[in-house]
Amino acid sequence: MISGTSQRPVRLGLLGCGTVGGGVVKLLTDNAKYLGMRVGAPLEIARVLVRDEKKERVPELDRKLVTTDPELVLGDDTIDVIVETMGGLEPAREWVERAIENKRSVVTANKALLAAHGPDLVERAHAAGIDLAFEGSVGGGIPIIRTLREAFASDWVRSLTGIVNGTCNFVLTRMNEAGATFDEAVKEAQNKGYAEADPELDVGGHDAAHKLVVLAMLAFGARTDSKSVPTEGIRAIEPIDHRLAKRFGYVIKHLAVGRDAGEQIELRVHPALIAQSTPLANVSGVLNAIALEGAALGPCMLSGRGAGDMPTAVSVVADVLDVARALRSGVPGLMTRGIQMQVRKVVPIDELRSRYFLRFNVENKPGVLARIALALGDAGVTVEQMVQEEAPSGVHVVMTTHQAVEKELRKALVAIAAQTFVVRPTQVIRVV
Amino acid sequence: MISGTSQRPVRLGLLGCGTVGGGVVKLLTDNAKYLGMRVGAPLEIARVLVRDEKKERVPELDRKLVTTDPELVLGDDTIDVIVETMGGLEPAREWVERAIENKRSVVTANKALLAAHGPDLVERAHAAGIDLAFEGSVGGGIPIIRTLREAFASDWVRSLTGIVNGTCNFVLTRMNEAGATFDEAVKEAQNKGYAEADPELDVGGHDAAHKLVVLAMLAFGARTDSKSVPTEGIRAIEPIDHRLAKRFGYVIKHLAVGRDAGEQIELRVHPALIAQSTPLANVSGVLNAIALEGAALGPCMLSGRGAGDMPTAVSVVADVLDVARALRSGVPGLMTRGIQMQVRKVVPIDELRSRYFLRFNVENKPGVLARIALALGDAGVTVEQMVQEEAPSGVHVVMTTHQAVEKELRKALVAIAAQTFVVRPTQVIRVV
Repeated sequence: MISGTSQRPVRLGLLGCGTVGGGVVKLLTDNAKYLGMRVGAPLEIARVLVRDEKKERVPELDRKLVTTDPELVLGDDTIDVIVETMGGLEPAREWVERAIENKRSVVTANKALLAAHGPDLVERAHAAGIDLAFEGSVGGGIPIIRTLREAFASDWVRSLTGIVNGTCNFVLTRMNEAGATFDEAVKEAQNKGYAEADPELDVGGHDAAHKLVVLAMLAFGARTDSKSVPTEGIRAIEPIDHRLAKRFGYVIKHLAVGRDAGEQIELRVHPALIAQSTPLANVSGVLNAIALEGAALGPCMLSGRGAGDMPTAVSVVADVLDVARALRSGVPGLMTRGIQMQVRKVVPIDELRSRYFLRFNVENKPGVLARIALALGDAGVTVEQMVQEEAPSGVHVVMTTHQAVEKELRKALVAIAAQTFVVRPTQVIRVV
Repeated sequence: MISGTSQRPVRLGLLGCGTVGGGVVKLLTDNAKYLGMRVGAPLEIARVLVRDEKKERVPELDRKLVTTDPELVLGDDTIDVIVETMGGLEPAREWVERAIENKRSVVTANKALLAAHGPDLVERAHAAGIDLAFEGSVGGGIPIIRTLREAFASDWVRSLTGIVNGTCNFVLTRMNEAGATFDEAVKEAQNKGYAEADPELDVGGHDAAHKLVVLAMLAFGARTDSKSVPTEGIRAIEPIDHRLAKRFGYVIKHLAVGRDAGEQIELRVHPALIAQSTPLANVSGVLNAIALEGAALGPCMLSGRGAGDMPTAVSVVADVLDVARALRSGVPGLMTRGIQMQVRKVVPIDELRSRYFLRFNVENKPGVLARIALALGDAGVTVEQMVQEEAPSGVHVVMTTHQAVEKELRKALVAIAAQTFVVRPTQVIRVV
């Protein structure tokens, strides 16, 4: 019964048919024969839910399958797998939960949904004995979820460091390479379709925080949510910071960082200086990358297109294949079996130990540097390297520090900010 | 029956317990509980075949299980999965074939075996309805096999470019960064345990060719063997080539290259100049990396430790988990289902179109450059950039060319070699 494709089709109900959903329809159509052989049964698009029935769709889509009535998908007992590419929290959560309740396997690319309800959905899926697959939710076409779930099965992830937001990486790359301002780079990203009209979700770091929560669930077995992740965006980065970072041998990237710190875990999203020689420093433009450090495996990095219709669609269809094959082989639910999650406290950002890049814009007069150094010294912060250069007003005193506790550093910066010689607020960027 | 671990154990027969096999024993022991939950049944090491019973082994190994008699593993009907980490062609081939015949699933990390008999073994496994997993055979801990098999299921691999031999990459890195000679760098690699006493399998490019054949099977569905792969090692690369490559903006790496060329496929292993700005150029030391170009996915790269006991062991144990879970769920054999392979002709290296780095060591007298340029021009080879610098004897005329057909270039080089002004044989390195 298993070999060949004589089995009855696996019927797919698609929720959403935008850029990613359209790509899924295209790939399912183009590769129907091969996928059918791999699954052991044909994959059949049974119904496609959209918001606007009149909107143009990919030519591969059979318009007769399109509906605006969710009941025709969710209420159809002949549908085996729900493929959710609509995005957003509601009604996606309600519909995915209903699908799980009705014992349908689910494939989703919805990072917001998973960041808010991931562990709960995984547990519901496990209890219902169905599969919940979500490779498309993080890193577009990069097979990071699969790698964490399967390849690392006998290893422990010590840390992960990711460039997981293509918009941020594009903006920072253009600022660094073309000397663009933040606003110019964002406009360019919008013109190229890499940034939304309202870019806040991306450049504010929130999208990266969602993805970090999903990664932390698999890498560290952590039940958490994006509200617990200290999150900073890239709005505060100025062209001069890129230039000075380069002078010190660094590149500025927007990073999602996770680390197993024993009882607690470290999770944080912020711009950071990373050494030019590290592999992540060379991940440019809209590319994403995730560097993992396994206890046994050592360093491992995956990179590729982190967004876009086709890369994400490839990930969704790979999930559909897994889920459909498990279903027709009579063994749904293996994907989440044995995955354990527990609430883990996130290290408060105040307690972080890190190195820092500091740029002070101060008056150019004797004694200023001494007073900065004194304030830092009082807080136990020691300077690693320092340069001073003229600013439009006064001078820039720029330095990197040795490891310091963030709380202590902030105390010193508050003390310095109170001084009359400060021309503009001090720039602080962590060094990873 | 599926959930929980109340099922009878999955019994593993290990063939080999050297560095990788020892790592497998350690990981299976350390992660027994978690792996048992994921599989739905405990994993039990039933028997371990070794060549030398007296040799010291990892402390996790129960010495009572050790035997030198292959019959006690291969002839034991209670063993469910054979885990082969002994390496080499024979008797590995014979034993793996026998295991498949007896309907035991097999996990192997043996690239030489797969390069010689991969497609045949995959077909035997498929016919027997059991799984054959081999993540450990290429790229150590890098999940490249899994990625090609599963993540790319709905995509086509247009090309792959890999640094798949850690010894070569270490030697080239040391030559490039520390200015070492080939012999010095090989000695250093041997001292660090990165190279064998006889390094020919690695530095001759043969190991990389084995791995390329395995990758080509999954990426291009190609039935081929390493004899069909034009293969060059790194012995001919001199320190001066690294310095000159750098001057042109390149790095020299030893690459395995595969490309879907329609009817034929391009497969080749050789040192090559790659642009300093490409991600592969920054993969240093013993690290491996494989860059893929998917039709839908676009560029994607995986990097990590390509060898070593623990990284490879992590891959082997990930395979054991997959195979054991499929077995206890009653669905062995899904892994290879639908994977199609056909004999594909490899483009002869003569017909390759490539750019080239050429270093002529010639007498320093008027007219020499003109005669070189003339010979190249006659063969339709045009120069992209050129520098000339003093050599210990005569001068080095160094250039990169635009795209040319290899056969034509070789003709020109034969013509030039016949000239009396040539001091030493010309260095030719392809530019990728």
